[in-house]
Amino acid sequence: MTSPTIPGEIKRGRPRSEQVERAILRAAADILAERGLEAMTIEDVAARAGVGKTSIYRRWSTKGTLALDAFLLDFLQSQPLPDTGSLDGDLVAVLRAWVRTARETSMGRALTELVAQAQYDPDLAAAWRQRVVGPTRAQHRRVFERAISRGEIPTGSDVDVMMDLLFGPAYHRLLHGHAPLSDRFIRRVVAMVVAGAKAGAAVPTTSR
Amino acid sequence: MTSPTIPGEIKRGRPRSEQVERAILRAAADILAERGLEAMTIEDVAARAGVGKTSIYRRWSTKGTLALDAFLLDFLQSQPLPDTGSLDGDLVAVLRAWVRTARETSMGRALTELVAQAQYDPDLAAAWRQRVVGPTRAQHRRVFERAISRGEIPTGSDVDVMMDLLFGPAYHRLLHGHAPLSDRFIRRVVAMVVAGAKAGAAVPTTSR
Repeated sequence: MTSPTIPGEIKRGRPRSEQVERAILRAAADILAERGLEAMTIEDVAARAGVGKTSIYRRWSTKGTLALDAFLLDFLQSQPLPDTGSLDGDLVAVLRAWVRTARETSMGRALTELVAQAQYDPDLAAAWRQRVVGPTRAQHRRVFERAISRGEIPTGSDVDVMMDLLFGPAYHRLLHGHAPLSDRFIRRVVAMVVAGAKAGAAVPTTSR
Repeated sequence: MTSPTIPGEIKRGRPRSEQVERAILRAAADILAERGLEAMTIEDVAARAGVGKTSIYRRWSTKGTLALDAFLLDFLQSQPLPDTGSLDGDLVAVLRAWVRTARETSMGRALTELVAQAQYDPDLAAAWRQRVVGPTRAQHRRVFERAISRGEIPTGSDVDVMMDLLFGPAYHRLLHGHAPLSDRFIRRVVAMVVAGAKAGAAVPTTSR
């Protein structure tokens, strides 16, 4: 059903430097999962990674951007690009993978805390858009574009709005906690997006 | 087009006590608008309201819950319950009012900061669900239920999922900032929700 995943951003450097970076990110990811972003300190990460604090500050200027890279260590790889042959099947697979990550892995806590922190930190907000939202949406865009080329949904459908209709409700329930991220919810959201798109409701009207 | 608004929660008390409470909330709302939740202190609020700090601590145990009540001072009144005669018209009016509040008033900043803070503060998260999400959704539920009773959309449509599809995309763009909360976006989201609902996609299937 699935195969390629979003490639992570590979940083160039000497092998030793890469090992240090990897150790720092692993330590940060573990501490994030255990204690959360607010309680995480650079001192803790340095101690657990077995490096000096300067090794961290040389690479990351803030705790938020370090946490973002630690989150990205596993996040993009956990989000598949499915190819089931139908828009409905692909969207259910995409949304299930995201909900699984958010609910069943330690990345869920980092996800909500990074979105929260980004409301106060413009640099983190920009990095979040560039390194999380950007690659994730580029991948989901392909799912909708394949549906357009198969003739499942009309040419000219607004892919950005359809992606917001798919992920917006999921983020809404994750961040507000007013209702569960159940599999029934996933199937209902996907059914609504597919039905709306097939009816041509995502095609901008020229009248206004 | 619009008329009743969600009634705010009225606290009982002697007139003098109500005046003090009102002054504290007004001061907190102004400081929130000017400096944001992170920079706001109880000292600042007390000074601006002309009361002692104990007058605040007697009523609110945390800065977060004080900020929530300050936000609620104007928020619910800014969210109308429209009755245009069609689901499409009602939902456009509802979403436009929310976007206007989020983008064009000082409540927008408090809105994002309170959602952010709720990720770290379970008491604030519970109060947010009870005092913001609850009354807002009760009102929007009526819009969908009227559409069901008019026969515009099928009986048995999942109102909770439809509300998530309406507000989830808007919160998504507000919190992630990846795309604008334009009027075109509003109309496209509403068109998708209405088309999906009319196609019966919000009605749970019995098969699975």
